[in-house]
Amino acid sequence: MRAPEKLGLLSPWEIGTSLLSISWGWGCPVHLTELFLPLIQRTGVKIHTQRSQVRGAAGVNGENEVAKAQQAAPGGTAPTIFSRILDRSLPADILYEDQQCLVFRDVAPQAPVHFLVIPKKPIPRISQAEDEDQQLLGHLLLVAKNTAKAEGLGDGYRLVINDGKLAAQSVYHLHIHVLGGRQLQWPPG
Amino acid sequence: MRAPEKLGLLSPWEIGTSLLSISWGWGCPVHLTELFLPLIQRTGVKIHTQRSQVRGAAGVNGENEVAKAQQAAPGGTAPTIFSRILDRSLPADILYEDQQCLVFRDVAPQAPVHFLVIPKKPIPRISQAEDEDQQLLGHLLLVAKNTAKAEGLGDGYRLVINDGKLAAQSVYHLHIHVLGGRQLQWPPG
Repeated sequence: MRAPEKLGLLSPWEIGTSLLSISWGWGCPVHLTELFLPLIQRTGVKIHTQRSQVRGAAGVNGENEVAKAQQAAPGGTAPTIFSRILDRSLPADILYEDQQCLVFRDVAPQAPVHFLVIPKKPIPRISQAEDEDQQLLGHLLLVAKNTAKAEGLGDGYRLVINDGKLAAQSVYHLHIHVLGGRQLQWPPG
Repeated sequence: MRAPEKLGLLSPWEIGTSLLSISWGWGCPVHLTELFLPLIQRTGVKIHTQRSQVRGAAGVNGENEVAKAQQAAPGGTAPTIFSRILDRSLPADILYEDQQCLVFRDVAPQAPVHFLVIPKKPIPRISQAEDEDQQLLGHLLLVAKNTAKAEGLGDGYRLVINDGKLAAQSVYHLHIHVLGGRQLQWPPG
């Protein structure tokens, strides 16, 4: 079965996947998404994460993100939603991949362009990176700036790495946020 | 001539240097600071950058920072205020130094702890980093997390790299902001 082409009206599949996009946040119970995934994946329909509403500088759900981060478990190397994206058991809008890292759009974008760069090595947070990760960390920054260029962010962008609760880190798998496409404010949160 | 020890009251020198601290921001004409520098340095009095008021999440001068960034010149490898700190012709509250980088407190802190990690190599912005900078970039991140630990930021911190006008980059010498010591909000600016 193949999803119908866009005809100006949303097909039932598109309505369904859009609803799924809206409901799917990092804090949403993963089981809910997984319930629909095998069905959706068989149809070849892509989950349209880009349709999520872009939040401005005064993001409506900013406080929720901070609250969620307070409850995120910073424990060890347990599987996270990002390891599920890495092993393709969860879908993502992937922009780039190589042997060391994966780049995909944030499902809760805070700017017109908002993507994440993550290492395949499961480093929980930057404070747990080790000297042996130096090459990998440099690679992540280079991939971030290369992808920003590919995304047309010539007028600038911001890279952000959150470590721990006070920084509102909500997924304990190291990731670099890259935000662009609007004027970013100061202070940075 | 030697500056007097602290006696509970501010000496004329301390009043003078404190006033200088308050007036000195990245956007302040450097000549004004330089006018007093030789005199101050001869006395051995340190410029107390840490006395600057810490701005909260709703930083009073946030819009000014963004406005200043709009006027900052992103041109080439011209000397910046950071190259003057590197060659010690401007003072800074230095936390760490090695052959590749320097770490010092931001003179306009946005959190109780706010310092900058800069490479000695004058890379103007992250978008102008090159593949050969991979090791250096990784080193900067490792130094950032090591200094954060040394500063007691065990509950978390945020690393931020601004590129260009839309990100409010105000000094065109690559620098990593490290902010901690308070709950940081989301979105990051």
